[in-house]
Amino acid sequence: MKIQVGIIMGSKSDLPIMSEAALVLEELGVGYELTVVSAHRTPDRMVDYAKSAKDRGLKVIIAGAGGAAHLPGMVASLTTLPVIGVPVKSSNSIDGWDSILSILQMPAGIPVATVALNGGRNAGILAASMIGAFSEEISKNLLAFKESLKEKVEKSAEEIETNGWKLT
Amino acid sequence: MKIQVGIIMGSKSDLPIMSEAALVLEELGVGYELTVVSAHRTPDRMVDYAKSAKDRGLKVIIAGAGGAAHLPGMVASLTTLPVIGVPVKSSNSIDGWDSILSILQMPAGIPVATVALNGGRNAGILAASMIGAFSEEISKNLLAFKESLKEKVEKSAEEIETNGWKLT
Amino acid sequence: MKIQVGIIMGSKSDLPIMSEAALVLEELGVGYELTVVSAHRTPDRMVDYAKSAKDRGLKVIIAGAGGAAHLPGMVASLTTLPVIGVPVKSSNSIDGWDSILSILQMPAGIPVATVALNGGRNAGILAASMIGAFSEEISKNLLAFKESLKEKVEKSAEEIETNGWKLT
Amino acid sequence: MKIQVGIIMGSKSDLPIMSEAALVLEELGVGYELTVVSAHRTPDRMVDYAKSAKDRGLKVIIAGAGGAAHLPGMVASLTTLPVIGVPVKSSNSIDGWDSILSILQMPAGIPVATVALNGGRNAGILAASMIGAFSEEISKNLLAFKESLKEKVEKSAEEIETNGWKLT
Amino acid sequence: MKIQVGIIMGSKSDLPIMSEAALVLEELGVGYELTVVSAHRTPDRMVDYAKSAKDRGLKVIIAGAGGAAHLPGMVASLTTLPVIGVPVKSSNSIDGWDSILSILQMPAGIPVATVALNGGRNAGILAASMIGAFSEEISKNLLAFKESLKEKVEKSAEEIETNGWKLT
Amino acid sequence: MKIQVGIIMGSKSDLPIMSEAALVLEELGVGYELTVVSAHRTPDRMVDYAKSAKDRGLKVIIAGAGGAAHLPGMVASLTTLPVIGVPVKSSNSIDGWDSILSILQMPAGIPVATVALNGGRNAGILAASMIGAFSEEISKNLLAFKESLKEKVEKSAEEIETNGWKLT
Amino acid sequence: MKIQVGIIMGSKSDLPIMSEAALVLEELGVGYELTVVSAHRTPDRMVDYAKSAKDRGLKVIIAGAGGAAHLPGMVASLTTLPVIGVPVKSSNSIDGWDSILSILQMPAGIPVATVALNGGRNAGILAASMIGAFSEEISKNLLAFKESLKEKVEKSAEEIETNGWKLT
Amino acid sequence: MKIQVGIIMGSKSDLPIMSEAALVLEELGVGYELTVVSAHRTPDRMVDYAKSAKDRGLKVIIAGAGGAAHLPGMVASLTTLPVIGVPVKSSNSIDGWDSILSILQMPAGIPVATVALNGGRNAGILAASMIGAFSEEISKNLLAFKESLKEKVEKSAEEIETNGWKLT
Repeated sequence: MKIQVGIIMGSKSDLPIMSEAALVLEELGVGYELTVVSAHRTPDRMVDYAKSAKDRGLKVIIAGAGGAAHLPGMVASLTTLPVIGVPVKSSNSIDGWDSILSILQMPAGIPVATVALNGGRNAGILAASMIGAFSEEISKNLLAFKESLKEKVEKSAEEIETNGWKLT
Repeated sequence: MKIQVGIIMGSKSDLPIMSEAALVLEELGVGYELTVVSAHRTPDRMVDYAKSAKDRGLKVIIAGAGGAAHLPGMVASLTTLPVIGVPVKSSNSIDGWDSILSILQMPAGIPVATVALNGGRNAGILAASMIGAFSEEISKNLLAFKESLKEKVEKSAEEIETNGWKLT
Repeated sequence: MKIQVGIIMGSKSDLPIMSEAALVLEELGVGYELTVVSAHRTPDRMVDYAKSAKDRGLKVIIAGAGGAAHLPGMVASLTTLPVIGVPVKSSNSIDGWDSILSILQMPAGIPVATVALNGGRNAGILAASMIGAFSEEISKNLLAFKESLKEKVEKSAEEIETNGWKLT
Repeated sequence: MKIQVGIIMGSKSDLPIMSEAALVLEELGVGYELTVVSAHRTPDRMVDYAKSAKDRGLKVIIAGAGGAAHLPGMVASLTTLPVIGVPVKSSNSIDGWDSILSILQMPAGIPVATVALNGGRNAGILAASMIGAFSEEISKNLLAFKESLKEKVEKSAEEIETNGWKLT
Repeated sequence: MKIQVGIIMGSKSDLPIMSEAALVLEELGVGYELTVVSAHRTPDRMVDYAKSAKDRGLKVIIAGAGGAAHLPGMVASLTTLPVIGVPVKSSNSIDGWDSILSILQMPAGIPVATVALNGGRNAGILAASMIGAFSEEISKNLLAFKESLKEKVEKSAEEIETNGWKLT
Repeated sequence: MKIQVGIIMGSKSDLPIMSEAALVLEELGVGYELTVVSAHRTPDRMVDYAKSAKDRGLKVIIAGAGGAAHLPGMVASLTTLPVIGVPVKSSNSIDGWDSILSILQMPAGIPVATVALNGGRNAGILAASMIGAFSEEISKNLLAFKESLKEKVEKSAEEIETNGWKLT
Repeated sequence: MKIQVGIIMGSKSDLPIMSEAALVLEELGVGYELTVVSAHRTPDRMVDYAKSAKDRGLKVIIAGAGGAAHLPGMVASLTTLPVIGVPVKSSNSIDGWDSILSILQMPAGIPVATVALNGGRNAGILAASMIGAFSEEISKNLLAFKESLKEKVEKSAEEIETNGWKLT
Repeated sequence: MKIQVGIIMGSKSDLPIMSEAALVLEELGVGYELTVVSAHRTPDRMVDYAKSAKDRGLKVIIAGAGGAAHLPGMVASLTTLPVIGVPVKSSNSIDGWDSILSILQMPAGIPVATVALNGGRNAGILAASMIGAFSEEISKNLLAFKESLKEKVEKSAEEIETNGWKLT
């Protein structure tokens, strides 16, 4: 399977969140790579990663980080690929506001596609939807995925409507 | 020019922000369509727009709205295309927090690629970067665009370094 | 007992909060139905539910959801019945601010009657008060309910005043 | 026309916001009364107003106030009628957060149906929808009102789609 | 000992915070009474309490409440005595912001002397300082109390300076 | 007239807010002094002011400051008199949150009686109420003041009820 | 005069704030250089600037930026010099919170010395104090500067105490 | 080893955070002293500490405090040395916002170098970087420290890239 999505995170401690992106990409049949790249502790490595991403065949980069989260924005400044930013609620974060605002509020010219706090899974789905816009196969997988979400809701609705909510 | 981006907004009053997406797409050579679709006042129209978007050839939808901004998330629930959400700081918004949070904090399964408050221009660039990942032409345009941003900074740096900041 | 209140929620995980609405409606003698309807995962089901609510005899809809909570507002856009919104503090919510703002800050034209964060019980009481305005029976039940609240406070005051707070 | 809605506000300075409730009730064919009642400066008057509201034929009370806004919640504690609270962004308010939170976050037992910041118009519509649930006439007026909202959006969409957004 | 301070709270669940006011008043030699009075569940009782406070010899009232905390402000509207408000971080409070803002942001004319979130102890000290301004005895007690605070800090400083912080 | 209230502020630019305290004290017949004392720029002056306040006959100190507002809390640490803190929304303040939190959130042991943002007038009234608890004369003035507030509300209510709100 | 402080900013539009750092450094007799360096638009230039700063004789770098402000943190990751960060409240900033949090909340290992929102002047003074710790001359200048601040406060106090505040 | 850094905190309960500053200074070969000084409970001790710091050979002071944290700013007002402020998230803090804002938002003239919430470790590194700007030895230690941070990231990246993230 072709690797089309690069998943990076500022610290290995972000793995519980960022691995959800990897898992849903596997579900959706999208090839990915995953590693650790820190904007602040390995700035040169970050520059190399971002500048080479397109030539290595990536179509989108998912970058997660907590606190003053500079990784997604800095990577976006170093590539023409779309960058999805995942604000991670790390231990000394102020309820996640720091991560969200330092990823979301990028200046005009350098966008980051920000997803919800700890939204690793949504980052994976969003990456797949970008690829699915140009791939019938992935698009079909997304459609089936959406269908499965619907079915899960319908099933829990049915259970409640049949048995009453007090038995659930 | 092929229309690949759909720009929609909840109200005509969002046009000053959302037209910046249109303008930068023109700069970057990406075809787009632009109209008004309200989640709350024209829910059926929204459903039609979102469900038909992919078949009409769109690759990405940009949706802007203010206050309790449901348009981007609802459109994302109705299509497999990537949806970019633009939080608009409307008149009775609480400093934009309402628009940001009701676009950004989508539940797992239905992501919206959120950009900065009033970030119409960045929404356009992000849409172009999604398309540029699959089009050498758009990718080149993005590279030139990034180069022009750099040159503008370098020029103002040179001016200040040559003449001193007091003369600027 | 006539079913006059529809209680819906975006996910079965909202049940611990939303069942409090059901319980207090039982206390107050108001008939209700309860099920799961997701704005994002079952948009068509949501449209059907909202559009048919009035004809099925409902007088008010209580809708609870967390995060970017679009269910109450979208339902309000699809019916002329009053809609009560319950912001639920779900797991990745940012302290509940996202749920509150995406329910409360509805644009002019489409109100949602928002209650406190996790305010399932208050949503039930509010629904009963809407019905009680047109039903002497329910109104009397509400009066008795208010009286019981008062008595509970008076009893704990009496205990403290009699025995001193150190013994409580 | 029967007076079914009472509109009160903490200060005459809230009139620009609260009169929007009155105006939309006139549009929707609902009778109302409007006056000034301050929780903090006329507490006895507030008690009288709230306790007599039901007997005077009111079906719902709309109460607006700014800052530490206690009027809606205190009125709700004194009547079994539903109370709609309008947070008003007064001059020394902290961006409206104080008004919103002191109206919205009522303790279990005493709900207030809170609408958006400065949402006088939505308060009126919400009051009408409560009455419309029990009156075919008002319900029809609400349906026509919703239709007119839709038409306004469709008209501005049509203008933009016909003439292009640059001419608007 | 003359009772000069009235301590009231909206619910018995506020006792862990509000009893700290009582305890420090005992330390400082100030007589107090303590009971439960709810603005929303016992509005009449609240009116009676506040209106009779001065005649019963009270010099200051301490009122604590959580969420949309109306008790301190409403009591302040019903008496000329100074009222100290204690924002209590109750279970469904939004990090305490609701309690703080609905106590602090009183409109011009009706002040509440607000102390820190959960600041029951500080409320007691503040009440004592108001009485101490007119009583040499209480003033001396306050001076000794301040001295004891100083000594505690100096003692822990000395320990650390003598033994090093690693042994503490 | 005996000087019983000391009004101080961190900077002359706080005078528009703090002079409201002075004006209402004049209305209420309470003697006061007013000057500028900066915690950060004149720390020694602040220490002298606070330590001598009681001996100079003051019964309460009103201290206003903006941004990281340390004046009220530092003065409170240096006297046994009650200190009223006025958060001032200065030019580079973050919507006043900095002033509010650095005055309100004092640690256990050193309370500050905090009033609303820019609440100079309320600080004056609160100071008068502290003195009024021990002075029948000031207490009567406060009662008359409260009465005048009530009459103003009643008059605007009467106007609206007589002429209708559209003529106001 | 030896250049010991480097002042950089993300955009020329930050100059009104950042030039205050330059002006106060001139007052305090500290040599500086000032230019524009953008983390997002000129990432390579930023790397060069930060990596060469120490060898060029700088002792401290002052970096200002708005929105998702990555410049101070990224520069700090590329040098061992202390970096002072100035959060700038730019046009689409959310009241400055984004700038503050993305500068302040740096992860362990890479500190940024953050000053107040728009605190260009304080950044200059802080830089001078770092140098003053190792230079008697600058230290004396700082002492004189502090003295002048004190005198200004004392003078305005004297004016008010002499003429009364109503004449000021 | 020469003592060049003074570490102080408002309360011994801040030691778990502030000792991290001490530990990293030991790693970096910088001499320090550590004690407890409270702005509010030992104001005279604070004045003595701050005024004598420079003469005792200190080059920088690190001050940590929680809630309405006045220690860093007050110390900064009493010395020409740079002061690093550490906002501590103490027990009744409002998510740390109070500590952050009352340290960060100092008025023009009196800067405090603020680090992240609970950022004791970063305060130590920042202090070392100020000294390292004038000491080749400390500067080398900082360089080695930065190198070790980089190596840790590279090692965890290598592990993940070699073994896959599922085995980590």
